[in-house]
Amino acid sequence: MASPLRVGVIGLGTMGAPMARNLAKAGFRLSVATRTAAKAEALAAEIGGEAKAFERFSEVGRRCDALVTCLPDAPEVEAALFGPSGAAEGLASGAIVIDCSTIAAESARAFAARLFARGVFLLDAPVSGGQKGAIEGTLTFFVGGEAAALERARPVFEAMGKRVTHLGPSGAGQLGKATNQILVAGNLMALSEAMAFAAKVGLPLPALHEALTGGAANSWALEVLGKKMIARDFAPAFAIKHQQKDLAILLRTAREKGVPLPGAALVHQLLSALEAQGKGDEGTQALLTLYERLGRA
Amino acid sequence: MASPLRVGVIGLGTMGAPMARNLAKAGFRLSVATRTAAKAEALAAEIGGEAKAFERFSEVGRRCDALVTCLPDAPEVEAALFGPSGAAEGLASGAIVIDCSTIAAESARAFAARLFARGVFLLDAPVSGGQKGAIEGTLTFFVGGEAAALERARPVFEAMGKRVTHLGPSGAGQLGKATNQILVAGNLMALSEAMAFAAKVGLPLPALHEALTGGAANSWALEVLGKKMIARDFAPAFAIKHQQKDLAILLRTAREKGVPLPGAALVHQLLSALEAQGKGDEGTQALLTLYERLGRA
Repeated sequence: MASPLRVGVIGLGTMGAPMARNLAKAGFRLSVATRTAAKAEALAAEIGGEAKAFERFSEVGRRCDALVTCLPDAPEVEAALFGPSGAAEGLASGAIVIDCSTIAAESARAFAARLFARGVFLLDAPVSGGQKGAIEGTLTFFVGGEAAALERARPVFEAMGKRVTHLGPSGAGQLGKATNQILVAGNLMALSEAMAFAAKVGLPLPALHEALTGGAANSWALEVLGKKMIARDFAPAFAIKHQQKDLAILLRTAREKGVPLPGAALVHQLLSALEAQGKGDEGTQALLTLYERLGRA
Repeated sequence: MASPLRVGVIGLGTMGAPMARNLAKAGFRLSVATRTAAKAEALAAEIGGEAKAFERFSEVGRRCDALVTCLPDAPEVEAALFGPSGAAEGLASGAIVIDCSTIAAESARAFAARLFARGVFLLDAPVSGGQKGAIEGTLTFFVGGEAAALERARPVFEAMGKRVTHLGPSGAGQLGKATNQILVAGNLMALSEAMAFAAKVGLPLPALHEALTGGAANSWALEVLGKKMIARDFAPAFAIKHQQKDLAILLRTAREKGVPLPGAALVHQLLSALEAQGKGDEGTQALLTLYERLGRA
């Protein structure tokens, strides 16, 4: 294309802020906004160049060909797009919204239909890779929506991540992310049980950890979260309350589709015990501590 | 040492036979035996050189400094070592038994004590890596027992595997393997739920599989068993009935130690449903088919 896409970012939290920084590094002219206007101004000032902050989401919409949204859940996405002074008011026909929020597939489909009525395309594009992936620009995107819109927006994706997988029409990206969360949650439970068992029977954890990573027991969870468990580091890279939001969406969708998921449901209940203990803000690896409380002192 | 160790192998099944071949390749003088004498003779003939087959386990014991046993469960290990014409009758003081069978830690400790009374050392050394690891000589060994005995037997281990981890006194190797099986079983359940969900909601499985392996959802199970599920290849690399034996041992031990493992218990019950359907000889990845039967047709 003749001139590079003008890009907007709405939602500048743990994920959105580093993604905006990577978009600026890749040379996109940025307009940013978030609920707290001062936060957007601080980020625009930090980025410098042509980056500008706006108070109204509609002003961001007016200034971009591609709008990236990174918000906590569907109500926030709906408000940002369709609320008073929402981005949809400003978006021109032909613009593309890349929604990186993890929300229900049916919400993604409903938002896509509402935008399509205005000539705007929505790609549901939830990510995997966490804050680390957002900072390093190595995110994986699970994408649903029009293939042609994805091709047009590809340079925007490539500024933020390393894998962009088109999985089908609107909602398919969210279903791919839901599948991802089944694995993330299940592998976490297996890891927590393994580490709780090994500690209780008195095995040397670092040596055992190294042996386990060499074979059929290995996983990202074992490599990354297993090390944190051994170091008793329960700081959040991915907080329990966020895992719980994703699992709640997943289990609702799975029931509607007629796919019983007893394992994922069990993890959801165990993490719910940790929330009841006031640990919702801890990292998911704190599931280990529940097993420690369950077992013999 | 002046002359290389003379090595015996008892149990020439899926694991024992390829391990014996690798020991012969590494130059050890082999004596082999198994329940079916003809099978031992065929293997010795195939290996050639100085390899010899014997009908009585005591004759193998008499001819080795290190005895490798690869048997289905504790009763078979007990019979091979302590039954009529068992290996213990032949083993000289100072000999080392390397038991690669997966059995309960308490059985390993009991066998070690009985052998120690005769001046013989037992290393419990269950493996991870499956038939493929046994053939390629890339097994991981979880070892319990005397560190000095392990050092003396190290060349024997190195002929069969690539990681040898000493985890503590007698029984510690079995406890390490049990920890391994918690992870293997839990990751299998998460994978089965993920693939059943993704298929039911209509996602393109090969593209999704590739996206999932790039991030926090990845595991050995996803990479290896996930591909088999997509290909609908349910042939056993690790059969359901063997996973069930290991989980039964694990859950008994966990209860004794006071570590409740609801996730591992759930996998055990789900696999038990497959056994009830006559699928105990299929590979563990056939757990996918149970989820398919559970859900909406």
